[in-house]
Amino acid sequence: MPSQFDPPSGTRDLLAADVERREHAFAIIRSVFSRYGFEPLQTPAFERLDVLLGKYGEEGDKLVFKILRRGEHEASGEADLALRYDHTVPLARVAAAYGSQLPTPYKRYALGPVWRADRPGKDRYREFTQCDLDTLGSESLLADAEALSALHDALAELGLPDFTILLNSRRLLAGLLEAFNVRSEIGAGVLTSLDKLDKLAPDDVVSELTGRGLAPDQAADLVAALAGPDSADRIRVALTKTEEGTAGLDEVDTMMSLLSGQIPPGRLAFTPRMVRGLSYYTGPIWEATAPGVAGSISSGGRYDHLIQQLGGPDVPATGSSIGVERILPLLPGAKSAKPGRLDVAVTVMRSDLAPQSFAFAAAARSAGQRASVYLGSSGKLGRQLKWASDSGARWCLIYGEHEHEAGTVTVRDMASGDQTHVPAADIATYFGSVAPGAS
Amino acid sequence: MPSQFDPPSGTRDLLAADVERREHAFAIIRSVFSRYGFEPLQTPAFERLDVLLGKYGEEGDKLVFKILRRGEHEASGEADLALRYDHTVPLARVAAAYGSQLPTPYKRYALGPVWRADRPGKDRYREFTQCDLDTLGSESLLADAEALSALHDALAELGLPDFTILLNSRRLLAGLLEAFNVRSEIGAGVLTSLDKLDKLAPDDVVSELTGRGLAPDQAADLVAALAGPDSADRIRVALTKTEEGTAGLDEVDTMMSLLSGQIPPGRLAFTPRMVRGLSYYTGPIWEATAPGVAGSISSGGRYDHLIQQLGGPDVPATGSSIGVERILPLLPGAKSAKPGRLDVAVTVMRSDLAPQSFAFAAAARSAGQRASVYLGSSGKLGRQLKWASDSGARWCLIYGEHEHEAGTVTVRDMASGDQTHVPAADIATYFGSVAPGAS
Repeated sequence: MPSQFDPPSGTRDLLAADVERREHAFAIIRSVFSRYGFEPLQTPAFERLDVLLGKYGEEGDKLVFKILRRGEHEASGEADLALRYDHTVPLARVAAAYGSQLPTPYKRYALGPVWRADRPGKDRYREFTQCDLDTLGSESLLADAEALSALHDALAELGLPDFTILLNSRRLLAGLLEAFNVRSEIGAGVLTSLDKLDKLAPDDVVSELTGRGLAPDQAADLVAALAGPDSADRIRVALTKTEEGTAGLDEVDTMMSLLSGQIPPGRLAFTPRMVRGLSYYTGPIWEATAPGVAGSISSGGRYDHLIQQLGGPDVPATGSSIGVERILPLLPGAKSAKPGRLDVAVTVMRSDLAPQSFAFAAAARSAGQRASVYLGSSGKLGRQLKWASDSGARWCLIYGEHEHEAGTVTVRDMASGDQTHVPAADIATYFGSVAPGAS
Repeated sequence: MPSQFDPPSGTRDLLAADVERREHAFAIIRSVFSRYGFEPLQTPAFERLDVLLGKYGEEGDKLVFKILRRGEHEASGEADLALRYDHTVPLARVAAAYGSQLPTPYKRYALGPVWRADRPGKDRYREFTQCDLDTLGSESLLADAEALSALHDALAELGLPDFTILLNSRRLLAGLLEAFNVRSEIGAGVLTSLDKLDKLAPDDVVSELTGRGLAPDQAADLVAALAGPDSADRIRVALTKTEEGTAGLDEVDTMMSLLSGQIPPGRLAFTPRMVRGLSYYTGPIWEATAPGVAGSISSGGRYDHLIQQLGGPDVPATGSSIGVERILPLLPGAKSAKPGRLDVAVTVMRSDLAPQSFAFAAAARSAGQRASVYLGSSGKLGRQLKWASDSGARWCLIYGEHEHEAGTVTVRDMASGDQTHVPAADIATYFGSVAPGAS
């Protein structure tokens, strides 16, 4: 039952372990993208309403969080701003705004929250992170191959245990429809049905296709070509009959050739039935799948006229999008115990000894350790050791009357209980010889 | 003149150089805070409207960005959510929501954007970053000293060339007013005037004080005690006459003693006239100032009942807030040239040689270099070298017909123009021997 202290519906409070796991993954992604020469772009959380509306279709417009006008205009009940719905419309605006100030091609990544007023559900949030990389201004298939390769490397470096990237081409799909004499009016619907070949039985897809207006033979041939055992060969033969099909096949073959040295065999698969839902793709398309996860975990493709449709200049464009929210639960250690907050916990046994305790914590920090003094009110060692243990500290520094007189600090190994006496002046040196976080 | 492609009023598009400079600074701050055992907390960008309203006073409420209800409720013109105005109200909500699931004390930092519909101006934005660290649940002055020390270390590690942290105590100020027989009704106003002693001449402050109802002698005595040459001694004598004054002086002396080993002499100054504007402080208060910057660049203090007033549990609390937007322009290198996007630029001289070029870029990346192939359409070496130069690349790999036949790659040092011929199979090894980013 939601309490008055819960975050708003569809949003989350991210406590330490969540933040740390996410930031670790984001750092890996940024590092990979940067190594490919993609540069970061951060746009505001909100855009002017007119920049966003009309870009996501009627259904999308309803999911935009709109911001009420302010001051004397608040009473009008009108909105003038809206929260970012994705990173692509802001990219189109930035491309229009900065034009020649941006490098050519402009290779940028964006990693940050977007907001959609979808009905919240399991793993479906109203505030979630999107991670996109895009290259504007290059018609070269090398740009597509680079975007796919960067996606692959990011997934691999994140430690995703098992995934496959499916590759296809929109031009190839157009050629396929032409080769099988599918009328262009029903082409989009036919592709939508073919995209279900990974979920439905071939016969069910044949039924769907006849329902969409294909002749039974035509539907059966098409499905056999895409789902049969010798599919790849049959598709190739069919495609070479048409110009678009030949061009699409060339795109796929060139991509496969460029990527053959970068991506381990079996991780990249030419998949003629893979369609990608969105209509704006114009060239190669790809999506990554992982066992046990329905749908794709990441995707991408060439979308040569979209930036103009979204209000930007008419530039060729290609890119990848990583479904970070879907991937995070799949990463190793996602469910592991919360890491300790401290390496070194320092007792405060008497208030007149506090300055020394404070200095020991500082000395441990100067050696790269995470360290803090006890901030509670108990003078009892047992209570303070419990705090050290709760903090996940690996060592507890005990500094009481006895140590004060001896000029030493008792260093307790919290795992073994072993205690060492270290001269008070040597604490920084002592912890400098232990690597932070080492076990 | 604003263009239709500008970001909304008061917000910024952060291009690569800006993002990199900011993220570098944020990483330092996170690292320092983590070393003190503060853990990260990220709350949603928006809260329920009732969580925010009424917490920032009437003026503050007007500056909250409100989000329109959605779906059938949109037409009502009512808001039900609002963008985060600071990190403290969300902290109060989290403390109430998670209670005993949080560590005791709960030491957290929050670093992220907040939104305020202030009139935009030079260095005043409607979307800006706030960075707070707070300790909930400790009454100990060690917690205050730790919060101040962490603030100091963050400013120092950021490389801020010159700054001073002023220390005072609200209890000391209360004792001071008592010692000078200031009536409690006008106490807050008197403190506001005394806070101006760093900007106004002493006589002007005396005038303000008499305007507020102090007798001329009383006002002159008070100002002389705070602004005179032997101020610290006079203040001490006056304060020891009252209980609150003695307690406040004790707070300051204890803090100074705890911090004497951590903060270089002269960087921390007991400053009796420093008041901090906000009324919620209850114990030690501090603020950091830097030459040439009006007002404070960071601040903090103890605020023992605020969390409850903001809707959370009644816990003692203390913390620091870093004015990151004010500090970033002061940091070394803030205006330096944009760093290069690439270390290694790889030419593509002929499309049939592209797979090899693509592989060389991958080899350089595997050695930790930022590397990319040429994505343009020109086959001319001059154009591709210009691209390499524009990308800030330190090396350009040239792979044309000649190199293809010889089985080598020409590695051009972009600064000197020197060229080396490296066997094609040795590219990863070659770049592995050059540290990334080294000169």
